[in-house]
Order: sequence, then C-alpha cells, then structure tokens
Amino acid sequence: MTTLPPDPEPVLPPPPSAYQRTIAAFDRITEVDRPELWITLRTLEEVLVDAKAVDARVAAGEDLPLAGTLLAVKDLIDVAGLPTTAGCPSYASVPETSATVVSRLTAAGSVVLGKTNLDQFATGLAGTRSPYGVVASALDRDKVAGGSSSGSAVAVALGLVDLALGTDTAGSGRVPAALNGVIGLKPTLGLVPKTGVVPASRSYDCVSLFARTLTTGQVALAVMTGPDEGDPMSRPWPADVRLSAGRRPRVAVPDEAGLALLAEAARPVFAEVVKRLRAAGSVVEPVDIAPLLEAGKLLYGGALVAERYAAVGEFLAGNPAGADPTVSGIILAAGELRAHDLAADQQRLAEARSRCERLLAGFDALVLPTVPDHPSIEEALADPVGVGRRLGVYTSFVNPLDLAAVAVPAVRGPYGVTVVARAFEDQVALDLAAVLTDEQAPTPYPEPGADLVVFGAHLRGQPLNERLTTLGARFTGAVLTSEGYLMKLLPGDVPQPAVIAETDAGSALAGERWRLSPAGLGRFAAGLEPPFVLGRVELDDGSTPLAVLCAPDAKAETADLSRYECWRAYLRFASTAGRRDPG
Amino acid sequence: MTTLPPDPEPVLPPPPSAYQRTIAAFDRITEVDRPELWITLRTLEEVLVDAKAVDARVAAGEDLPLAGTLLAVKDLIDVAGLPTTAGCPSYASVPETSATVVSRLTAAGSVVLGKTNLDQFATGLAGTRSPYGVVASALDRDKVAGGSSSGSAVAVALGLVDLALGTDTAGSGRVPAALNGVIGLKPTLGLVPKTGVVPASRSYDCVSLFARTLTTGQVALAVMTGPDEGDPMSRPWPADVRLSAGRRPRVAVPDEAGLALLAEAARPVFAEVVKRLRAAGSVVEPVDIAPLLEAGKLLYGGALVAERYAAVGEFLAGNPAGADPTVSGIILAAGELRAHDLAADQQRLAEARSRCERLLAGFDALVLPTVPDHPSIEEALADPVGVGRRLGVYTSFVNPLDLAAVAVPAVRGPYGVTVVARAFEDQVALDLAAVLTDEQAPTPYPEPGADLVVFGAHLRGQPLNERLTTLGARFTGAVLTSEGYLMKLLPGDVPQPAVIAETDAGSALAGERWRLSPAGLGRFAAGLEPPFVLGRVELDDGSTPLAVLCAPDAKAETADLSRYECWRAYLRFASTAGRRDPG
Repeated sequence: MTTLPPDPEPVLPPPPSAYQRTIAAFDRITEVDRPELWITLRTLEEVLVDAKAVDARVAAGEDLPLAGTLLAVKDLIDVAGLPTTAGCPSYASVPETSATVVSRLTAAGSVVLGKTNLDQFATGLAGTRSPYGVVASALDRDKVAGGSSSGSAVAVALGLVDLALGTDTAGSGRVPAALNGVIGLKPTLGLVPKTGVVPASRSYDCVSLFARTLTTGQVALAVMTGPDEGDPMSRPWPADVRLSAGRRPRVAVPDEAGLALLAEAARPVFAEVVKRLRAAGSVVEPVDIAPLLEAGKLLYGGALVAERYAAVGEFLAGNPAGADPTVSGIILAAGELRAHDLAADQQRLAEARSRCERLLAGFDALVLPTVPDHPSIEEALADPVGVGRRLGVYTSFVNPLDLAAVAVPAVRGPYGVTVVARAFEDQVALDLAAVLTDEQAPTPYPEPGADLVVFGAHLRGQPLNERLTTLGARFTGAVLTSEGYLMKLLPGDVPQPAVIAETDAGSALAGERWRLSPAGLGRFAAGLEPPFVLGRVELDDGSTPLAVLCAPDAKAETADLSRYECWRAYLRFASTAGRRDPG
Repeated sequence: MTTLPPDPEPVLPPPPSAYQRTIAAFDRITEVDRPELWITLRTLEEVLVDAKAVDARVAAGEDLPLAGTLLAVKDLIDVAGLPTTAGCPSYASVPETSATVVSRLTAAGSVVLGKTNLDQFATGLAGTRSPYGVVASALDRDKVAGGSSSGSAVAVALGLVDLALGTDTAGSGRVPAALNGVIGLKPTLGLVPKTGVVPASRSYDCVSLFARTLTTGQVALAVMTGPDEGDPMSRPWPADVRLSAGRRPRVAVPDEAGLALLAEAARPVFAEVVKRLRAAGSVVEPVDIAPLLEAGKLLYGGALVAERYAAVGEFLAGNPAGADPTVSGIILAAGELRAHDLAADQQRLAEARSRCERLLAGFDALVLPTVPDHPSIEEALADPVGVGRRLGVYTSFVNPLDLAAVAVPAVRGPYGVTVVARAFEDQVALDLAAVLTDEQAPTPYPEPGADLVVFGAHLRGQPLNERLTTLGARFTGAVLTSEGYLMKLLPGDVPQPAVIAETDAGSALAGERWRLSPAGLGRFAAGLEPPFVLGRVELDDGSTPLAVLCAPDAKAETADLSRYECWRAYLRFASTAGRRDPG
C-alpha cells in the first residue's frame, strides 16, 4: 500500500525584513516632510545596523514577538546614545543606558528610528509648547496634534512607525491618540517601569504606547510590562486580576451633563459608539461623571503640580535657554506652594478615589470621549493654558484616580473614545476597545493565570457559568479531549455531566478552556462540590490542563452520554426529546 | 444490655460576667490611683449599663468573641457620647457616632471604660506632652510611660482593662507597649479603618491595639480588621496573603552597629531573645539596618511632617487654650514647608521602600528592640524633642515603609522587642512574637483562605511539603478521614500515596489540614500533577474540605497500604523493613 505525498505547504511571501521595513520607513519620512516630529532622527545607516541585527536573530531562529517593528520614542524617555532633551535643548544629556521599557521592546525585536517632539517637560496637552516646533495633527495641518506626546502619535498616524512610546500624566498618551486617529494605550500606573524616563509628576506619570492596531499594541504592552528594580513605583499584577468582563459587560457613559462639553459635531459620533457597544452585548448606562471631572482638576488646579517643580523646578529656576515661557510659568509658580496644601490635596484625592470606586462599582468600564473638540493651532497659541485645560477635561482624572485607559479612534473624525477601567483591569478595557477596532490579540495581556477546562454546567450560557465569570475568568476557546473520556449524567437539580478518564473505552469530548487568575482558580477550587474534582485532562493536542472532572464514585450510578461527545449536544437532544437520556 | 450513663460534664465555674468584671475593674482603678491615665473615665453606672447588655446578649445565645472584655480608648478615637479631646481641652467635641473600630469591638462584646490620656495630637513618644498630666510607666513611676498612646498602654499594664486602642504613626502603639511590658499590635496600614480617628499624619497613621495576651489581642484584631467606606485608605487583604513562614522562619536582626544605640542593660536581654528565636527553629541573621533608621528620620526630619499641619495646623495657629508648646512648635513650623520638598521626600520614601524590600528579601521578619532605653520623666521634660527622637529610633521607619509590627515584652525588663514583617504579613509577625509570649490564638488572623487536606509527600517534613510552605500555607492541624478511603502506593521517584474514596471497603486515614490564601490554593492547583486531583474529602467530624486525592485510573495498579492508616506509619515500616510494602 502506498500513501499519497502530503499536500505541499502553501507558499506565502515572507514578511518584509526589518531591513526592508526600515528603508521603506525612511522613504516615507522624506515623503511626508514633517521634520518637526523628530527631535533626534537617527540616520538610515544607524538604524539599518539595528535592523540587520534583528533580521539575523530571526534567521537564527529566535522567536521575537516584535521582530522588525519600527519604534519612535518620546524624547522624555532615554535611548542609549541619543540625547534626551525633554523638549528643552539646554536640558539635553546623552544617557549610556536605555530606559527599561526601550530595552524590553528592542530585545523583543523593535528597532528605534528616533526621538520625537513633545510639549516641553511633558507639560501641555496641545503639542504646541516646544522649541523644536509646533506639531500639527496628522488629520489636519491647521489643527493641533495634541500633546504632550505629539510627535509619537503623529509618527504612528502617518505610518512612519508601527509603535511609539509616549508618557501620560493628564492625558498625554490619549489626547494625541484621539487627535491623530491612532490607538493610545495607557496602562495602570506602575505596570510599565519608568526607569530612564524624565519625571513630570512622579505619582501620576506612566509610560504609554501608540499603535495603529490593538493587536500590535497589546503584544508590545505585554513585552513592556513587569516590575523593575529601578522604578520604586513598579507594581506587579495582583493575584486576583480580572481577565475578562464576560459577554455582557456593564459600561458607564457620561450622562447629558457630562457630554455637554463635547463639540456639537462629535455628539452623534459618540452616540454611534454607544450603539456599537450595545450591539456587541454591553449594557450601557449613563452616570454623572462630575465627581471624576472634579478630581481631574486637582491635578493642575491645586498643589499636586508641586511634583512638577520637584522634578525640574530647580533646573527651570536657572532660566535655561530654550525654556518655554508657559511651561516655566506653570512649573515655577508651583515652587511657592505649601507642603500642607499638597498633603491636603493628596487627601482629597484619596477621598475622590473612594468616590470613584463607588461610582464605578457594578460597572466594568467607563466609556467617554477622549477630547471635547479639536482646537486649531492658532487657538492653542493664543490661549495655551485655556486650550490645555479644555483638552484634558475627559482625561486628567484617570491617573490621579489610579485607573487604566485605552483610547481608540471613534467611528469617524478626530473624536476618539476612551475606555477607562479600574486599576489592573487593563484587559477589560482592551476587550471593550476591541469592539470599536474590530481586532485584538488573541491572548489576554496580563501574565499570571492558569487554564481550566470545563464540560458541563460551567460552559458559556449554562447555569453555573457565572461561577467562572464572577471570578474574572476569560473564555479562551473550545477544546477537544483525547479519546479516553466518558461522559455520564449526574442526578441533581442542575443537570450536569460527570467526565471521567477511561483509557479503554472512552471518547473525545468537547469542552471549553478558561483562563483564571491564581486567586480566581483558588476560589473556584474552594467552591467545588462533590462529586467534582480538579485534575489534569488530556487534550487532542497533547496538552494537559486542569479540568473539572468527576470523582470515581460518581461513575457507577449514572447514564452514559459519551456518544453525544459534547454536553450541549446532549442538552439539545434532551430538549428535543423532552426527556433525559436514560443512558 | 444496659449502657452506662455518660460521664457527668465537669462543672467549671462560669467565666465572670461583664457585670462582675466591670465592678472589679473599677475597684482596681481606685486601688491603683492613676487618675492621669484617663481623660474621660465613664461612671461605674454608665459602664454597667453596657456590661449588662453584653451579659444579656450572651445569655440570649449570641456568640461574642470578645464578650465581657474591658476596653480603654485613646482619646484620639471617637466614642459616641464622650468628648474627643486629642489631648487638647479646647479641641474637644462630642461625636454622635463611634469610630468604626470602636463599634466593631463593642459589637463583639467589648465594654468601653473610658478615654485615655495621650501626647497631644499624638505628637510625642514619651507620654509627657499632655495638659491632662504626665503619664508614668506602669513599671517605674519615675520613668516615662512612652507615648503617644500612654494612658492606653498603662491601663492594660495595670490590669484595668483587657484591651486598649491606641494609634501608631512613628511608634505610638509600640513604644508604650515596651515601656509598660504589654503587647502592642500595629497592623499593616489600611487593614483597620481609621473612620472616626483624629489624624496625626494621615498617610502613616494606623489604629493599634494593646493587650496583655497575644491570644486576646489577635481575636480583637480579627474583629477590628476589614475595609470601611468611611476610610479612603482602607485596604483589603491581598488574595495572595502569606499565612505562615513555616517551621524555619528566616529572621533578620540588627548587626552590632544597629544595636549600638541600645542601652547597655538591654543588650544581654536582646541576645537572649535571639537565642530563644533560634531555639524555636528560626534562622537568625544580622543585617545592616542603617537604611531603615535613615528612612525613619524622614518622618520627622523632613517635609512629611506637613501632614500634621494639614491635620490640625489651622486649629493650632489660632493659639488655643491648653495647646502644648512643644507640640504647637513642631506642627506650626511645618506650616512653612514647601510642597515640592514634600513631593521630593515622598519620592525618597518610595525609594527607601524599594531598598527595604531588597533588604528584607529572603527574610520572613526583622526582629529588633522596640526602644533603645527607658528615659526618666525628668529627662523627657528637660529635652522633649531629643528624648522623643531617641525613643522612636527603632520604630519610626515602620509605617512610612509600609510594614506590620508586633511589639512584645522581652524576656525581662522594659526592653521590649518588635517583630516587623512586610505589609499584610501580620500573621507571620504574630507567629514569631508568639515564640516570646508562649501563647497565641489558634486560628490565623487574616480572613481569606481555604483549607486543603494532604496525606502524602506534602505532609510536614516530607519531600513536597515545600510546595505548600512556599505559597505561605499554614499548618492548622492533624485530621482523620471518615472510614471510606483507600491508601495505595504510587510508583515514581518520590514515594507517594494515592488516596481514593471507597465507601465499601475503606479505612480512616490520617492527614494534615493546611490553610492557603485564594491565590495560594490556585497556584497549588495549577501545579498539580497527574494522577492527583483536588476533591472533597469527608473527615471524621463530618466536614468536607478539599484534599489532594487520586484519580480513579491510578487505582488498579498500586499496592494497598490502607492498613497503615497514615502515610508516615507506612514510611516508618518501609524504612525499618528496608523495602516497600508490595501491598
């Protein structure tokens, strides 16, 4: 007997190399002619050295999650060998080591093209406060790019890079995302280390990321995340991190008063976003966001701004060349503030955090416009402080209240939308953002977790599924066991199958795989009722995750349903036949 | 056949009622003649009303964990209907509701005798800064009681009450514990709500507890603990809380330089403490505690003291009657501090926290003297600031660095010892403190957790026991199953038993019960290897905790060891016989 030769592998063109992508990017940089985006653009030759090194690593078989992606870095973040200016030429110094987040991205295969323009010392939300030039929006050259991470957002929007690092204190990683139509990921404070990043307001700063797709952004975030000894404010994922809000997320949106600040033209867009969230299964409910907006004002209106003086006040007090007068004015004024007023404002913030917790209790996320409108460059130059305040109205409460956020382009126009979630519920925010981007990475982003396979009443739509979803468990796919399992019917009010290993006479059974946090799995285990047990199951791909199986003593007295190969198939039979299979 | 009548229940005298205990306490109050301990002492008649109510609740069958315990409350903490003075007569006001912690204790059966004297506005560590009088030590009337919770500690030491609430910022709950020979429990910041407590330094304040036995203290702490909406700084137990350091805790102690501040007379006492810890199984290692002592200085030497101004500065600026000049001096001076200096000191503290984490990495706790010596009242009055600083040298770093502490009397003399543990590892500190007190409550104090019964290689001293202990699991006792289990020998490098339910032919098997945090149980489950499963086991007391059992398919091919009834018994047999039982 002869066997047929296997089908030939489909021949796909290889993905472009880092080398090819770099050359294309430099062509594009010339083409778009936006020199003001860059404070330092490396030469093509310099970048090609790095690109070739990545290609060589890939050729040597390294599995680089970000192989060949091109990266721009806000010039507040160190890249070894390139000056860090923070937007002020006289502040420049050349670091010997890269910021931790840059090292992690390049280790994963990203190639740095250069350092991008920003509002000086990350103080501004319009993108106009820089001696390196005003950055215009990628969508409209008369309008602001948004700041402070202006150059980074525009570089992504114009397709010069795949990824760009920003920072975000009051909205610097989200406002420019909205005003240029890209994705802005603002992780929970402390998840991404700030080692090698010039501080703006240490307690409320974080590194953020711009990307064109949520999928790439999420892969990069996973690489960027994780405690670092150099950053005393690093925080690990908590052991009970929620990995999903389930199929019917509860979403808060601003009520009419909360949307009153929104430009006329943007209102129907936001209404469409709400429609889309509902269509995707979310339960959407308006809430009064006034307490949040109030808390956001504390970041600039009170004594918290003293953190900016602590960061660069002494430098600015020396009247250095190239200092932006608005930036200097804000930061130097903060030098006069009293310590007890800062202590009192910090206390107010702690109280605001409690209020916010109560406001969001019962909700999985808050979805709101990212910006109220899109100011022109002219307006921003005429009233720098006023325009900055206006642009930050929907963003500045997020970090002080210790929340996570994902900014995505809205259905159309520069009126982005931000999904805000509780600290460490970044994945919940990503999932809701994905409803608007129609794409996302398949693996959840938070690291800790264990898989659990279920077969019966815990399946989606089944009566005990809530035991998983209330623990923040995430459905990660359908699975099939190897051929070695029996499914029997258990007696009881809630019909449930007993799945039992039976090497000799078993079938392959269909189930679902769920990912749980360590505490989620522990709580699930603690709630396990006899005759169920947690044990290893063998799947058809050879993996052996934990599963809800049955104790041996449940075996004898129950009906065999193995021929249905799937609990749902049996349920369909039972409902059609109007009876239970006696086995 | 007749059966003998059951043995008569032993007739124990009933425990004294709250009523009887109250009368005895008032007799004792008269006897000790220390009116300066109290700012408000309730009348016997008032207290008896509460005491009778507790007795009635007990008679009605309520299970009150603190039934009839007598409680003194530091006069910084609200008790409904009694004035709160904070040690300053002109500050007094009468709250309508009690502090959350007081309500919780009285709901659990405690009876409040009155409000105790303190260093005004909790600013002081000697117990001498009060217009209500200097409080002398219970051990020596010429020496200071320690502060700021002076009256509370002495009331416990003199046996007037069982429990007394204090507060602790720089050591106010530990220094007086040492100087009066009682136990001082200083929980992790945020575990016990501060609702209804006058703030001293909000970020670093916590409610503390004095008790004569660790057992009573621990029961009271469990009652006191748990988030409260009124306190924005409340924190719940983390899902991966460690419940034990195991049988060989690793303990850091100060090196010679760190002990150089200790009074000559106290050194041999501390050496004896170390000996005792070693005798109880701890691995003790000297470390350089200079970075900790340095961090402690930030609390008073820098801008953090502005929090005190934020709390009561405006009040003191009005030059109120009865203000202590030293207290006013310290707090009013803080009104001049700059906000950016506070921000900078907060950043220094964050860095110190990281350093502390690294210093304590690999250790379960740090044990150090509570106080360097026992100053006389005369000294403290002559140099109030200097003596305060000296008394706080070993205590003031603890709250700013977010640590937990338990202060216990040393082997002899007023030279107490403090066990310091990481945030939320309060139980680890309690366990080590219990080595010195020789008593403690049997149940671990942190609430979340699940029980797991093990039978084989996970037992204490067995090769896989580390899988439990590295997860912070706590051994909570030996158990026996009901008669319905088989124990068989599994093949493999590490000999392990398979425990399988077998209703018809089983035996009662001996095992061990362990308590794990939710994440601990989840991580244990995620590491489970076939043929083991987690399922319910029936114990001889009828309870059905989770246990490490065996999958049915492991059953057939193994030797039956059920007759040994205990894995250790089989191992003894096997080692004596020099072979494995073939079953």
